[in-house]
Amino acid sequence: MTRIKAKPIGASQMATPALTRKELVERLDIEFPESGHALGDYDIEEIWYGGCRLRQRYDKRLLRPGSTLSGATMMALGDFAMYLAVLSAIGWVPLAVTTNLTINFLRKPPARDLIAEARLLKLGKKLAVGEVAIHADGAKDLVAHVTSTYSIPPVK
Amino acid sequence: MTRIKAKPIGASQMATPALTRKELVERLDIEFPESGHALGDYDIEEIWYGGCRLRQRYDKRLLRPGSTLSGATMMALGDFAMYLAVLSAIGWVPLAVTTNLTINFLRKPPARDLIAEARLLKLGKKLAVGEVAIHADGAKDLVAHVTSTYSIPPVK
Amino acid sequence: MTRIKAKPIGASQMATPALTRKELVERLDIEFPESGHALGDYDIEEIWYGGCRLRQRYDKRLLRPGSTLSGATMMALGDFAMYLAVLSAIGWVPLAVTTNLTINFLRKPPARDLIAEARLLKLGKKLAVGEVAIHADGAKDLVAHVTSTYSIPPVK
Amino acid sequence: MTRIKAKPIGASQMATPALTRKELVERLDIEFPESGHALGDYDIEEIWYGGCRLRQRYDKRLLRPGSTLSGATMMALGDFAMYLAVLSAIGWVPLAVTTNLTINFLRKPPARDLIAEARLLKLGKKLAVGEVAIHADGAKDLVAHVTSTYSIPPVK
Repeated sequence: MTRIKAKPIGASQMATPALTRKELVERLDIEFPESGHALGDYDIEEIWYGGCRLRQRYDKRLLRPGSTLSGATMMALGDFAMYLAVLSAIGWVPLAVTTNLTINFLRKPPARDLIAEARLLKLGKKLAVGEVAIHADGAKDLVAHVTSTYSIPPVK
Repeated sequence: MTRIKAKPIGASQMATPALTRKELVERLDIEFPESGHALGDYDIEEIWYGGCRLRQRYDKRLLRPGSTLSGATMMALGDFAMYLAVLSAIGWVPLAVTTNLTINFLRKPPARDLIAEARLLKLGKKLAVGEVAIHADGAKDLVAHVTSTYSIPPVK
Repeated sequence: MTRIKAKPIGASQMATPALTRKELVERLDIEFPESGHALGDYDIEEIWYGGCRLRQRYDKRLLRPGSTLSGATMMALGDFAMYLAVLSAIGWVPLAVTTNLTINFLRKPPARDLIAEARLLKLGKKLAVGEVAIHADGAKDLVAHVTSTYSIPPVK
Repeated sequence: MTRIKAKPIGASQMATPALTRKELVERLDIEFPESGHALGDYDIEEIWYGGCRLRQRYDKRLLRPGSTLSGATMMALGDFAMYLAVLSAIGWVPLAVTTNLTINFLRKPPARDLIAEARLLKLGKKLAVGEVAIHADGAKDLVAHVTSTYSIPPVK
């Protein structure tokens, strides 16, 4: 299993992923038919080896008082972006599970789409660690920053 | 503002909260009319000064492959339980916001109600820090453990 | 490997540890001869299956401006207490390593000994997760709270 | 107070800091005369508005079994680098304190100098949040990644 080099988010990390965007969407549709996650609220904008850019489409149900998006929305987005980053490197392993997630909420997001950029910081045999930067569409400042660890099941 | 003593979760911390369960539910209904959170999926089972016990009612929409509940469900539950614990101590301050949340996922939760028990570890003028233990209804082992910080807006 | 039941810190968890306090100190002396940690600044006050109580002896070198102890002191103490809690459950496995640690600093510690109480929240085959409550000797309020994950090497 | 733009670590963030490297070292020498931190084990290699690059000089006292550096070393380094990043933006405010720190240990560091690069993700009136990437001197892969929050005392 190849080690991920630690590069800044946004750098040219566009190495070929272990499964394409199209393959990923098909798999997610089969695996999570009721969640509506893969199809409903999220758009996988780009996926590369060890990272992805994921869009959370704005929906007024996500709003909180003060016309801001809920923390739960950002946590779910960060977790899902990290999941895709893991799959981009190890291929389709649906039993990879989050063991740990830390989120720092930095600014109140406006009532708009959110963009999450995930990248792996480490890919080991048992654990993958990554970070996710979340910003509102069209804005540069981060609204939230996530670090997360996934446990990778042993290959049989 | 009174300091919270650090006691183990589950100890007799049943000091009078800054607002009652009934007041809290009414306020949440007014403030979050569309979210359905206060009324929909959550039951505030008990609230006391500096803590609460919150139930996430099982719904098949929360399921993930392997008949387990999603991580996003547990993160949202932990965040909301912590929010109630903060309000139980400072009263109705809707602009209290999460600045930081760390969750450790410990075991896969079964397809059942979840119970979150939150308690404050510190209540300062600017920040409140607490922890939340989450377990499945009827089980003792934790499925997740949350620590979280809320920023408290200055009193005017 | 037995599952750790999640009990409050301080509850009667005094099940027999996988190695005694005496065995542990001897092992640490052999393994960390130069660090002086096991002998120098720390006292293992009590160890039981899945937890321990560890004392950091006050030393003026640990002081920071304002007569408080450094954050680094509390982080090192929390990490070491968690390490002992892991060893208390799995026996002497020196290659167990921390993968993740989150600390919340709650109050400024006075210039005094610190007491750390660690307990495991989960003991799996690959990962152990626990929490550590740190308070100043003779005081009840927590000065810091730690959650941490250890990676357990496979048994050969 | 100016908002920090979220840029990747390593980008050209070399805006003028609120105090120069020389001023910072002088202040630290006065404030922490016994710790030896500012002078002893750390070199401030570069400081700019909102970030810094800090070197931990190798010392055999930091070694652990397996010829690796202790986790405590990396935690202290990450915390101190973040402290300098905060001071670089707000000027000399010695009472800024860490409220929260999360570290992910990614690889075992070799017996060599460590380099920490810190940058702020957010600078608010009350809180500063940042991340620190730590790698061994001469290596690209991260050995640890830190996110941390500092509480900024009110200006009088």
